[in-house]
Amino acid sequence: MTEFGFIDHIRTLFAALPDNGFEGIGDDCAVLPLQGGESLLFTADLLTEGVHFLRHATTARELGCKSLAVNLSDVAAMGGRPVATLLSIALPADAAGAWAEEFMEGYRTLSEEYGVALIGGDTTASKGGVTINVTAIGRAADGCIKRRSGARPGDVLLTAGLLGESGAGLQDLLQGRCDTPCAAIHRMPRPQVDEGLWLGTRSEVTAMMDLSDGLASDVRHIMECSGVGADIDLERIPTAPGIDLRTAACAGEDYKLLLCAEASGVDSLMEAFEARFGAPLYPLGRITGTHELRWCEHGTPSPLDWQGFHHY
Amino acid sequence: MTEFGFIDHIRTLFAALPDNGFEGIGDDCAVLPLQGGESLLFTADLLTEGVHFLRHATTARELGCKSLAVNLSDVAAMGGRPVATLLSIALPADAAGAWAEEFMEGYRTLSEEYGVALIGGDTTASKGGVTINVTAIGRAADGCIKRRSGARPGDVLLTAGLLGESGAGLQDLLQGRCDTPCAAIHRMPRPQVDEGLWLGTRSEVTAMMDLSDGLASDVRHIMECSGVGADIDLERIPTAPGIDLRTAACAGEDYKLLLCAEASGVDSLMEAFEARFGAPLYPLGRITGTHELRWCEHGTPSPLDWQGFHHY
Repeated sequence: MTEFGFIDHIRTLFAALPDNGFEGIGDDCAVLPLQGGESLLFTADLLTEGVHFLRHATTARELGCKSLAVNLSDVAAMGGRPVATLLSIALPADAAGAWAEEFMEGYRTLSEEYGVALIGGDTTASKGGVTINVTAIGRAADGCIKRRSGARPGDVLLTAGLLGESGAGLQDLLQGRCDTPCAAIHRMPRPQVDEGLWLGTRSEVTAMMDLSDGLASDVRHIMECSGVGADIDLERIPTAPGIDLRTAACAGEDYKLLLCAEASGVDSLMEAFEARFGAPLYPLGRITGTHELRWCEHGTPSPLDWQGFHHY
Repeated sequence: MTEFGFIDHIRTLFAALPDNGFEGIGDDCAVLPLQGGESLLFTADLLTEGVHFLRHATTARELGCKSLAVNLSDVAAMGGRPVATLLSIALPADAAGAWAEEFMEGYRTLSEEYGVALIGGDTTASKGGVTINVTAIGRAADGCIKRRSGARPGDVLLTAGLLGESGAGLQDLLQGRCDTPCAAIHRMPRPQVDEGLWLGTRSEVTAMMDLSDGLASDVRHIMECSGVGADIDLERIPTAPGIDLRTAACAGEDYKLLLCAEASGVDSLMEAFEARFGAPLYPLGRITGTHELRWCEHGTPSPLDWQGFHHY
């Protein structure tokens, strides 16, 4: 069973249980509406040694940052502000001392930067490698929450940054080149927290998520949740300098925001974003009514059938 | 560094960060007060293969139940009702198919029994053993939340069940005897959810927690958080039939509630509990002003210095 097959299986298995007021599985975060027009957001990410990271190819401090960053990215992708985390970490004997302390310093640095409290978790021994789970809690005004399900045919598809650096960095690491700029970006991605919060306030934005498994995979989640299709213009994919197009479209862990915006408002959205952040939004395609993902070359659908990145 | 040493280190490291309205590390759950006299509770537990369980000595279904049970127990220990969980699970290749499905069936059975929604989580591959993290969310009326910090000198110390079966079961399992009643209890502990909710409503109860590391260890958390000591009467420790006293006092994973109650109200509390649950509360000692833990034999402190169970 694939990762997504297993998640679908779980979703079906639990569908008949009471939801207790939560919007559950299916978006970057679960949503719990509170009284007073505000909701809480919940997300969890598990990182395991040898699958998500190689201990010899990252510092403990970088990994502490990354463990938190990937969760902050999920909160930001809903338009929320991260407020607290629970951190669980399983430590083999050779990581229980100085390594663990350095990990916590990295985790604290990013927690402090975004004003996020550490409210609980668990620490245990491990007979295998290091395993880390972070559960992040966010808050959002109800009107600012952006879901995967809000895209409509005619919307413009955009990313909030260049793609492919993290994927190229992973290739560097796997080939033993740990000191390249892309390898550094792969080890320590920056979550787009401020960008997500700001985009949450913009009514032109109809759907949003973060790019963790690659554009080719993640855009399908928006398509499925919104019941739409997408045409992506190959020549407009914002490929980072020196990165090949396929890596930009298919590799994972960019943690840039992927969003849809009403066509009539996209110019003013892009202008305001660039004025606020000094960096552009990149339009790279359109939402369609076809239920298909098409990779277009200068307006003509190509035979490409690119897929995203799967851990298993 | 020990587990508790590392947790203290983390707590110090994060003390200067904003709390964002959360009561954080230090109790069975973190607490987030909402508007309207209610709070949310948050707790996480990490279970790793070879440390918390042996895959050949438990069924996947039992482990699914236990992974949830230990978290429900933490919510119950604060007087809260569990409402939702996030489940993260790392699966080696030989556990990714039927084993994982059976695990989820166990998890679902207990979720259904207590009406708990599964709202999110993560699944990944593992290059080592199975690792499971559950984050549980509970709700509680503010006036019903019981903390570790509420014990006062003169209070009576009680447990809501017999002790030692899980510890004896672990000994059985480690000796290859998987089919004993105690081994079954160790593999599938019952969280005292209804008992915790009911005790939360009782004003006589001043402090509460669940027994996960053993009485000898856990009572020290109440002592430390409340700034008190405790005298435990060896002859009143409610030892399960056939279990030795030291196992009952020191072994972990009983997941019975440990509570303190005002001496003036303890008789009516015990009567009402027994009327409600058909099982007694067991008084086993007193809270003192000494900051010491003393094991008493018929009223006289003994030289015993028992400690609880540590995973590392």
